[in-house]
Amino acid sequence: LEQGNLEGAKSLLVPVQPVDIAEAIEGLPQSMQVIAFRLLVKEEAIAVYEQLDSMVQQSLIEQFKQQEVRDIVDEMSPDDRARLFDELPAKVVRRLLEQLSPEERQTTALLLGYEEYTAGRIMTPEYISLKESLTVAQTLERIRTLATASEIVYYLYVTDAFRHLVGIVSLRDLVLSSPEVTLGEIMAKEIVSVNTNDDQEDVARVIQRYDLLAVPVVDKEQRLVGVVTVDDVIDILQQEATEDIYALGGVQSDGDNYFQTSLITVARKRVMWLLILLLTNTVTGTIIKSQVGLLEQMAILTAFIPLLTGTGGNVGAQSSTVVIRGLNTEDIMDLGAGQVILRELMAGALLGLALGALATVWAYGLQGNWLVSMSVGISLVAIAILASVAGSALPFVFRSFGLDPALMSAPFITTAVDVIGVLIYFSIARLILGL
Amino acid sequence: LEQGNLEGAKSLLVPVQPVDIAEAIEGLPQSMQVIAFRLLVKEEAIAVYEQLDSMVQQSLIEQFKQQEVRDIVDEMSPDDRARLFDELPAKVVRRLLEQLSPEERQTTALLLGYEEYTAGRIMTPEYISLKESLTVAQTLERIRTLATASEIVYYLYVTDAFRHLVGIVSLRDLVLSSPEVTLGEIMAKEIVSVNTNDDQEDVARVIQRYDLLAVPVVDKEQRLVGVVTVDDVIDILQQEATEDIYALGGVQSDGDNYFQTSLITVARKRVMWLLILLLTNTVTGTIIKSQVGLLEQMAILTAFIPLLTGTGGNVGAQSSTVVIRGLNTEDIMDLGAGQVILRELMAGALLGLALGALATVWAYGLQGNWLVSMSVGISLVAIAILASVAGSALPFVFRSFGLDPALMSAPFITTAVDVIGVLIYFSIARLILGL
Repeated sequence: LEQGNLEGAKSLLVPVQPVDIAEAIEGLPQSMQVIAFRLLVKEEAIAVYEQLDSMVQQSLIEQFKQQEVRDIVDEMSPDDRARLFDELPAKVVRRLLEQLSPEERQTTALLLGYEEYTAGRIMTPEYISLKESLTVAQTLERIRTLATASEIVYYLYVTDAFRHLVGIVSLRDLVLSSPEVTLGEIMAKEIVSVNTNDDQEDVARVIQRYDLLAVPVVDKEQRLVGVVTVDDVIDILQQEATEDIYALGGVQSDGDNYFQTSLITVARKRVMWLLILLLTNTVTGTIIKSQVGLLEQMAILTAFIPLLTGTGGNVGAQSSTVVIRGLNTEDIMDLGAGQVILRELMAGALLGLALGALATVWAYGLQGNWLVSMSVGISLVAIAILASVAGSALPFVFRSFGLDPALMSAPFITTAVDVIGVLIYFSIARLILGL
Repeated sequence: LEQGNLEGAKSLLVPVQPVDIAEAIEGLPQSMQVIAFRLLVKEEAIAVYEQLDSMVQQSLIEQFKQQEVRDIVDEMSPDDRARLFDELPAKVVRRLLEQLSPEERQTTALLLGYEEYTAGRIMTPEYISLKESLTVAQTLERIRTLATASEIVYYLYVTDAFRHLVGIVSLRDLVLSSPEVTLGEIMAKEIVSVNTNDDQEDVARVIQRYDLLAVPVVDKEQRLVGVVTVDDVIDILQQEATEDIYALGGVQSDGDNYFQTSLITVARKRVMWLLILLLTNTVTGTIIKSQVGLLEQMAILTAFIPLLTGTGGNVGAQSSTVVIRGLNTEDIMDLGAGQVILRELMAGALLGLALGALATVWAYGLQGNWLVSMSVGISLVAIAILASVAGSALPFVFRSFGLDPALMSAPFITTAVDVIGVLIYFSIARLILGL
């Protein structure tokens, strides 16, 4: 183990009895105990934990906080970590979370084994779980002793002997019930809960949809391990909205406050998109270069390039903005991708015709050649339709590949439409002008 | 009154005693009673309401719901309405809100006299207010009888004889206290409350900042009139984020679900920005037209216009995105406008230098003339700096004029940078190429 041979260590631990493993772990140096424990698969971890001396249980919990242990884990490859660290037993999670400050939870997150941005990472252990045989009067008595330790007493969670969540009683229901009935009689059995590895955004949507003050978090075996409260959810929704907005503006977001990061970080957050867009723009440049012959004959055609690519880009940005936000807030749910794209196509055609008519008149006013003006107007209609379809379809394409639709950002669609817009314009102009 | 002479009616009512006014109101035809009542200034309204026959009180409340009454009010000019309708007495608000469904509250909002998007519009009457002399045991008894009617029992509001909010007791504190103490002894006296005419976004921020489940709403005289709950706040924050995102994408937002509106509405929401942008783009076109002589000599210069305007637009969009979001979430608060713009200027210079170097090399590869390539590179640096400054400064300018910074949307900055970018490019190219 000390040589970092984890697979070997794991295979050695597997075939023996929990009590033997527990003894073996107790014999290890402190910083190795926790690593050895984390190598166990979940079912074994439960059994072994029960067998450990209570001193060692305590020291195990202590070790989650230690830098030395985190360093060892940090050096493993991410794959190794993910494969070796199973979910922790509910009991250990509770004990662990109770002893960690929110900051410590962040730094020990690696050892906790929950992915970033999941329910497991944002849950708190400050909940009250009780047995269903308790009466209302006994419960109120218990709450009086427990509640100072736990902030969230508005819901009480009823669990069975195996920590499975079997019911929820709100403090309101408790107060309204007569003292002698049991929790089992008044608890709500239709439980809305989330899983430890659910995305934090999904957790927020659950709380939002059911107007909850808190939602219980359970592990794979439906054991209660924590709760997520509504005040955390507000911050999460806010943060997710900021991320969406940044993505739409072509800025990378990683949860930091943009205004508190260094200039280098700011540049790093922004340069990736700009490079991609620069690359796309070089394509537009190359297309224009290939048409230098046409432009030398008709230099005035150049005057309309910004108008066409600009308007096309804006139409596309509008479509992608509404579709991306619709996908993220689930406003769009009842419409299929086909319907949404068709609607955007029609809206694009409508807008294209209105703007195209205006642009034709303006183009004639600027240079007095009807053929050039018509080329501009017709191109604008075609570009608006194309931009609407691309702007609304690409977020769906991104999503179907499992990517965040917000990556299909407004700058991206703006630049993409530039390329195709210029191509369309030159083709139509050549056709109409006969060049 | 029936001839719509409101000012006259009001002046007639003013000098007499409340009991006389009450009698006069009782003598009016039903649909006029409520109008006459709404003409009273607040202090009088309280006194008159107390004097009214309870049958008439009830019928007054009923009339708030009636279409006929709303029609009369609808026909007044908005100025008249705002001047004549004072805040309602707290007692009437409570009675009224209790009898109205949330939909009815929207339609009678005119008569309620609260502006749209204020705390007055989103508050609910489902709260429990109690006197401070009650003991915990008496309170629990009261809650048992009241709570079925009121959803939000997690906070109890303590009011004095004049409905002034004097303290708050959480259900948690109530359960944890011994039965014989009074509410006055356990209530929190540091009250966080909002005013009826506070903006709903500010209400949301208060709940978010203090991690509350509900916040009490008081009128100008600090009388309790309603509460706003955390679940409504989540929806408001969500809606405000959608509005910001739409504004950034150049789509007007009015709270409707975009995907449930007609095609005409969709086009209307989008056409305004597109027209503004089309207009800005015609300026770019006009500038290019004025340079046709240059372009006829050097048609290859055209190939770099999309690259320069595109990159400049993207840099500007990034700056405006982070600044607008920063202003709306108050992340930016501790930095002044000057600092933010300076930071963006430096970031723009950094990005401009990196991208400019790349663009110079690429431009040389495309056409083999170092002078043209240098013109492109130098223009890109200048445009990036300018775009960063404009993108970060304009939201502050908009805000200082009392406008929503989000109006300074990404499409707007993109198009504005087009205009100036083309000007810079041609000037630098002429200078370097000596044309």
